[in-house]
Amino acid sequence: MTEDSTIYAPATAPGRSGLAVIRLSGPAAGDSLRRLTGEPLSEARRIVRRSINHPITGETLDQGMVAWFPAPRSFTGEEGAELYLHGGRAVVAAVLAALAQLPNLKLAEPGEFTRRAFLNGRLDLTEVEGFADLVAAETEAQRRQAVRQLDGVLGELYGGWSESLTTALARLEAAIDFPDEDLPANLIVSVTEQVAPVAKAIAEHLADGHRGERLREGLSVVIMGPPNAGKSSLFNALARREAAIVSPQEGTTRDVLEVALDLGGYPVLLADTAGLRRTRNEIEAEGVRRAERRAEDADLRIFVLDAERVADQLPNLLNLKQDRDLVLANKTDLLAGRPLPEVGLPLLPISVRSGAGLNELVARISQIAAESMDSVGSPALTRARHRSALEEALVALTRSRVAHDPELVAEDLRLAVRALGRITGRVDVEDLLDRIFSEFCIGK
Amino acid sequence: MTEDSTIYAPATAPGRSGLAVIRLSGPAAGDSLRRLTGEPLSEARRIVRRSINHPITGETLDQGMVAWFPAPRSFTGEEGAELYLHGGRAVVAAVLAALAQLPNLKLAEPGEFTRRAFLNGRLDLTEVEGFADLVAAETEAQRRQAVRQLDGVLGELYGGWSESLTTALARLEAAIDFPDEDLPANLIVSVTEQVAPVAKAIAEHLADGHRGERLREGLSVVIMGPPNAGKSSLFNALARREAAIVSPQEGTTRDVLEVALDLGGYPVLLADTAGLRRTRNEIEAEGVRRAERRAEDADLRIFVLDAERVADQLPNLLNLKQDRDLVLANKTDLLAGRPLPEVGLPLLPISVRSGAGLNELVARISQIAAESMDSVGSPALTRARHRSALEEALVALTRSRVAHDPELVAEDLRLAVRALGRITGRVDVEDLLDRIFSEFCIGK
Repeated sequence: MTEDSTIYAPATAPGRSGLAVIRLSGPAAGDSLRRLTGEPLSEARRIVRRSINHPITGETLDQGMVAWFPAPRSFTGEEGAELYLHGGRAVVAAVLAALAQLPNLKLAEPGEFTRRAFLNGRLDLTEVEGFADLVAAETEAQRRQAVRQLDGVLGELYGGWSESLTTALARLEAAIDFPDEDLPANLIVSVTEQVAPVAKAIAEHLADGHRGERLREGLSVVIMGPPNAGKSSLFNALARREAAIVSPQEGTTRDVLEVALDLGGYPVLLADTAGLRRTRNEIEAEGVRRAERRAEDADLRIFVLDAERVADQLPNLLNLKQDRDLVLANKTDLLAGRPLPEVGLPLLPISVRSGAGLNELVARISQIAAESMDSVGSPALTRARHRSALEEALVALTRSRVAHDPELVAEDLRLAVRALGRITGRVDVEDLLDRIFSEFCIGK
Repeated sequence: MTEDSTIYAPATAPGRSGLAVIRLSGPAAGDSLRRLTGEPLSEARRIVRRSINHPITGETLDQGMVAWFPAPRSFTGEEGAELYLHGGRAVVAAVLAALAQLPNLKLAEPGEFTRRAFLNGRLDLTEVEGFADLVAAETEAQRRQAVRQLDGVLGELYGGWSESLTTALARLEAAIDFPDEDLPANLIVSVTEQVAPVAKAIAEHLADGHRGERLREGLSVVIMGPPNAGKSSLFNALARREAAIVSPQEGTTRDVLEVALDLGGYPVLLADTAGLRRTRNEIEAEGVRRAERRAEDADLRIFVLDAERVADQLPNLLNLKQDRDLVLANKTDLLAGRPLPEVGLPLLPISVRSGAGLNELVARISQIAAESMDSVGSPALTRARHRSALEEALVALTRSRVAHDPELVAEDLRLAVRALGRITGRVDVEDLLDRIFSEFCIGK
């Protein structure tokens, strides 16, 4: 699929800098480059110094560099060009204005370069998503997952399943279309045997505890506890760099305050909440309700208690669940050496004021984040979109195992392949069948 | 001059984007590129797809592109490399961290790439300044001036003067060092004749009304007038896009408010000031003093009067100077067809409320900006640094014309050449003399 129009857009972030890059893609890219530089195209993919001139007035807009990328070996698969400019606002504006004067050129819409790369078969949809995730990646672990996806690892995994199923489907179709051919009698059984490992692999892939999705979104951690236990100062201490933005709102709002942290390369969404207590103040009561709602969705809850009042405060904690809660005894500096009371569960002693115990707390949260996000071996499922398609495929496969009519089994396999194909945006069942049938050499 | 160390830094502005570029320069650039990609260097200046890997762990950091720029045909004149990465924060951070692991590499200081380009003779100082101006350029006219300077136009102009003077100086030096040689008797006269056109050219260049400097800084325009004449609403109307930032401070501060505008490609610094009136309020009185101080330095003063009270308000305007002032009669919408009074000077009728006359006002300011910034023909003097060096050269040349002792004339010429040389950072008087003497063929 090729487009008639040629698109252009800045590829680098706006702002003063040594370098800004403008990209062009489409059939007029090479001609546009010739007109802007007033010189013939240089060798493919070679960076050369050129004056960038206005195509009509001939005025020099910048002394820059250019490169030409002939189709199909470009990012989009189309003919492409890149202009390397001095990164000033007026320079970029002048060159964009000059490009607008050229025939058949239009400013690209958001994502249009990547869309063209997909339409031209240069990327599948999981790679497109990997590309988007890589640009959005804020932490090391997110970058790592996005690079793996951009590498096509997910696309290959889903594509492999899809091919296995399609091979089985092709055999079934052959039996249905050519019943007089010499095909095994126990076809359904053998197809089921071929499908079973794929269904198992999909089920295992789905049962990963949402690692990949959590890595994209961040581990949701909520700080809770009675008023005046030091929740907000702990929040500020952990948020460190963003404390200034957070703290002024604290007194004025009862809403949930949030900050995105990078703990050892893992993204963490830390939330501070209103102190938990019965109150007649309606705004404060709404704050408490929000704190409780937020805690329900959290991956990890951190309860902050006052070290001097642990025994009083502990019984009031609602729904304490050992596996997903940390309980802190704050203000240990005020204990003056007295031990914490035995309360039958592990307490993490800290003092936000003196900083004691904070490093241990951060290490503990990082460890929990790592455990809930790291996927050993197989690539992680990264998007809810993939999850729902995989679940749909699994439902169809499970159903196919109890069906006995070849036509019904075939229909279920077809549904499963279509669902997998939607993930990569690549696989058209009929195309795949054509390809596999041609390998079968059944036709005359 | 070459550096032992190899530097690296992001060349593009920070922020999420499709593309981010990291540059390397120095002897280890090629080797670093080999280690990051795990592949041999590609052809010079050719953009190739590569995995960017951590040099120690081997982990893939990004799927990007790279190019290698062998010395001396690189921006800095040193061996160079560029990494074209996906423009995500985590990607750029990971690659920068990986580069920090490589031997002999260090993060570049601000401007260090350009400094190396200068030290290696790839740019003179006026081109370095042109480069900086181009990156900083906010308007078309600023960009145009910076491109001209980056083209080396200023450097050539000053270099040409310097060479003329040095030729004259060489002839004088010859007469002083080799008095027995056959040299013209009226040497001083002929040297003076040679120097005169240079002095005239420098004087004319200096007498350009600060066009180039004003273009860099912006035309300073100040809005003044009695309270409640509509000054601040005019300011907001002209500032349009930035009005929201400006208006909330208005009531609270008596300080001078400022906004940078781009009027037809010319930079304008527009200032709003406190209403002019006698007041016992000390803060307001300080505001009036600041308004008056600001008006003294302004390139253009815009007086805003109330159309219904022109005759009353006009006599109170201090130091009205026709050549650099515009007088507006605002609120013409309230006149209901009545004519403006005759006051013996041209009034520009406007209504900020209805918008009448605003386009004419903007056109008028743009025209004044253009007249005070456009330099026809010769390139404009762009920096105070250049101006003071040129003035120093001119003083020395003027003095040389009344001196009669060849040694004193020579000393003045030498001072003038040194002053010019400081502008480009290039010319060393002794070097130039050596070169010119060698052409003289005086030596044995």
